[in-house]
Amino acid sequence: MASQDELKKQVGYKSVDDYVTSGMVVGLGTGSTAAFAVERLGELLKSGELKDIVAIPTSIRTKEQAESLDIPLVTLDTHSVLDVAIDGADEVDPDLNLVKGRGGALLREKMVEVCAKKFIVIVDDSKFVPGLGISGAMPVEVTPFCWEHTLNTVKNLPSIKGCDAKLREEDGKPYVTDNDNYIVDLYFTDPIKDANQAGKEMLETVGVVEHGLFLDMSFAVISAGTDGITVKTK
Amino acid sequence: MASQDELKKQVGYKSVDDYVTSGMVVGLGTGSTAAFAVERLGELLKSGELKDIVAIPTSIRTKEQAESLDIPLVTLDTHSVLDVAIDGADEVDPDLNLVKGRGGALLREKMVEVCAKKFIVIVDDSKFVPGLGISGAMPVEVTPFCWEHTLNTVKNLPSIKGCDAKLREEDGKPYVTDNDNYIVDLYFTDPIKDANQAGKEMLETVGVVEHGLFLDMSFAVISAGTDGITVKTK
Repeated sequence: MASQDELKKQVGYKSVDDYVTSGMVVGLGTGSTAAFAVERLGELLKSGELKDIVAIPTSIRTKEQAESLDIPLVTLDTHSVLDVAIDGADEVDPDLNLVKGRGGALLREKMVEVCAKKFIVIVDDSKFVPGLGISGAMPVEVTPFCWEHTLNTVKNLPSIKGCDAKLREEDGKPYVTDNDNYIVDLYFTDPIKDANQAGKEMLETVGVVEHGLFLDMSFAVISAGTDGITVKTK
Repeated sequence: MASQDELKKQVGYKSVDDYVTSGMVVGLGTGSTAAFAVERLGELLKSGELKDIVAIPTSIRTKEQAESLDIPLVTLDTHSVLDVAIDGADEVDPDLNLVKGRGGALLREKMVEVCAKKFIVIVDDSKFVPGLGISGAMPVEVTPFCWEHTLNTVKNLPSIKGCDAKLREEDGKPYVTDNDNYIVDLYFTDPIKDANQAGKEMLETVGVVEHGLFLDMSFAVISAGTDGITVKTK
């Protein structure tokens, strides 16, 4: 049986093999699954099978990995339309809506991936959920100023009332994002009923910078499980 | 004839005299007009006319002024409901909607003032406009990451299309807010047609942290002009 890592590698490689062609602007996701796509892209550039690629990383970590593989990098400032973006996800619902950001890179990921003509999601099949919010944290990026107040405000929004909210910590201190913000993790017992409304209410909350609901963004979800690889499109 | 400064002082003092009573939690705005309200609050606390006040400043500058006047300070983390907040504005429209943030403190101002039972706006009467956006910059606080991309995205939002957008600079470098973000200033030739829609579209833009439209927030606007002081309520 393939290990979790092997499954991640399969979907990471397949996403590049199937969706990236020479000349493209490619968004590079963040996390253990996305890292395999970055690895594969570097490999195909090195072998010459792919040419004239420029890529936009979604985190400092991914930037460093891409640089180590000699993948030419640009930014959204010069390339605001991407042909394809490839990234993992923490949850995928039946409509291919996502929860992302448990790795902490949600803002840059969303900024880049919302600009992609095709956003390809790569997961092992443990990430499929019947409804969003139930397998773990739903991250919200907030400004550090009065984060506790923002946490309480978010927790009591009508569309997500009843969730539990915790400031993400690392080594006993607040976890700090690439954008020098904090993360509030929301925990639900039941799936979020109206994710669009929840997203709207969170963005309208002063102090919220971005949230981990990635709605109506996926072009395809490539998943790997014991039954092999599956590609779902909307 | 009263100078601009004298007018600012009149409304600053009047706001405290008319709306602050002992025992209140008071939000303190930022800027040259709000500074007179802070001054007056300090004076009345010192004289003993006001007692048991705690205040929440909306910027580091205001915090320093309040501390210098021995005004007891708290934060939203412990006091999430304010009895009153007092602040200036850059523009006031006939419905008492505002443009704020030319001083750079929009995020903290909005965070505090949205929590006030009564938000009192103090201006000299040059701040009245027939429609929002026409007297100068409409500020948008954005994350530094790919700010140029965010600027272009905001500039092309359907509800504000055609505006000019510039990164705010200070000494040849990007102006940095109290929250370590940048400010994009939008310039309009015609008033913003649908400010609610504009606010919604800006917040939905990844990379936008907050915007300077303060809609449906004012309880009263105290203004001073050559004809004396006027108080408008909705």
